Amino acid sequence: MTQTIRPPRGEARARLLAAARDLVRHKGFAATSVDDLCAAAGVTKGAFFHHFPTKEALGVALVEDWTVTTSAMFAAHDYNRAADPLDRVFAYLDLRRAILNQSVADFSCVAGTTVQEVFETSALIRTAAGQSVQSGADHVRPHLAEALARHPVPGVTADSLAMQFQVATQGGIILAKAANDPTPAREAFDHLERYLRLLFQRPA
Amino acid sequence: MTQTIRPPRGEARARLLAAARDLVRHKGFAATSVDDLCAAAGVTKGAFFHHFPTKEALGVALVEDWTVTTSAMFAAHDYNRAADPLDRVFAYLDLRRAILNQSVADFSCVAGTTVQEVFETSALIRTAAGQSVQSGADHVRPHLAEALARHPVPGVTADSLAMQFQVATQGGIILAKAANDPTPAREAFDHLERYLRLLFQRPA
Repeated sequence: MTQTIRPPRGEARARLLAAARDLVRHKGFAATSVDDLCAAAGVTKGAFFHHFPTKEALGVALVEDWTVTTSAMFAAHDYNRAADPLDRVFAYLDLRRAILNQSVADFSCVAGTTVQEVFETSALIRTAAGQSVQSGADHVRPHLAEALARHPVPGVTADSLAMQFQVATQGGIILAKAANDPTPAREAFDHLERYLRLLFQRPA
Repeated sequence: MTQTIRPPRGEARARLLAAARDLVRHKGFAATSVDDLCAAAGVTKGAFFHHFPTKEALGVALVEDWTVTTSAMFAAHDYNRAADPLDRVFAYLDLRRAILNQSVADFSCVAGTTVQEVFETSALIRTAAGQSVQSGADHVRPHLAEALARHPVPGVTADSLAMQFQVATQGGIILAKAANDPTPAREAFDHLERYLRLLFQRPA
């Protein structure tokens, strides 16, 4: 979703997190060994264990770093500045579709991939991933709350509706991976937009 | 989604596939070693490699077996027998919600979990997972085609709409894993039902 920028040599922790982001996107968390991480980051195993007592600790830091960097990226984006709250939500969907114009690995979700694997074997990483999903819903939750305040929809809350953006994102990524094609991920956002336009009676 | 039934001793291949289904659901594909599989299935490594030349071959067979058994389960279900095609689709959503009344591992998707990890590292497993996702969409595609023939919706095809059931299923599973709670998976189906009722002008 965001480009991996290599920090200068010497910043071993940041290099390890950048390498982890890249490796997890391409082959998953379990398949990424500490040796792989050290080789990709150009650091020694000693440096790894200086920064992270375990691979699990690296996993927690990876997901937390993912949450912080993606949150900052979305919070700074222009879609948040439209006057009308639903226009902000539709502009966010345009952004999500634009993000799909790269390789599947590059629009995959570090938190979603990792929690898919470790939800039962690492409560610490699962908790970090749960916070990441909530943080993803934050990209649109306030805009949806404002839209619902103007146009209430019985039975629909901003919380629950915001989570559907995460459903479309995560489900779309899996379908894109299985199809080796971003089209199903794009269509998930198209259907979500059509749903919102029906809910809020705002035709395209 | 379906219960793991242990075949009698001696059927090593079936025992390995049952063990793989169980292990992949609990800890993912990469974290499941050949040793884990042999121990869980109660078979020797020799028996493993007699049936599967590589772990990847086991992965392909696992996903293909998953497709066959889940397809048979859904095809035989009563939801397919309602007179009205949309009633069939809503009954299918009731079934999907009922499936969530068990542990997260037990309603997780073997194909979705595996492809999340290996989409780039195993084209063979990815292809099998792509077929599994298509097969999942088949649970509702004919019913949606019939509903759309009676009530066309501009810009909406049965194919694309059927894939939204897979988006809700796969996305819902990831959110449930991250939250350690099936509620977000249930809400994904609730929103999908609301969307369909709006599209087809069929209030609850």
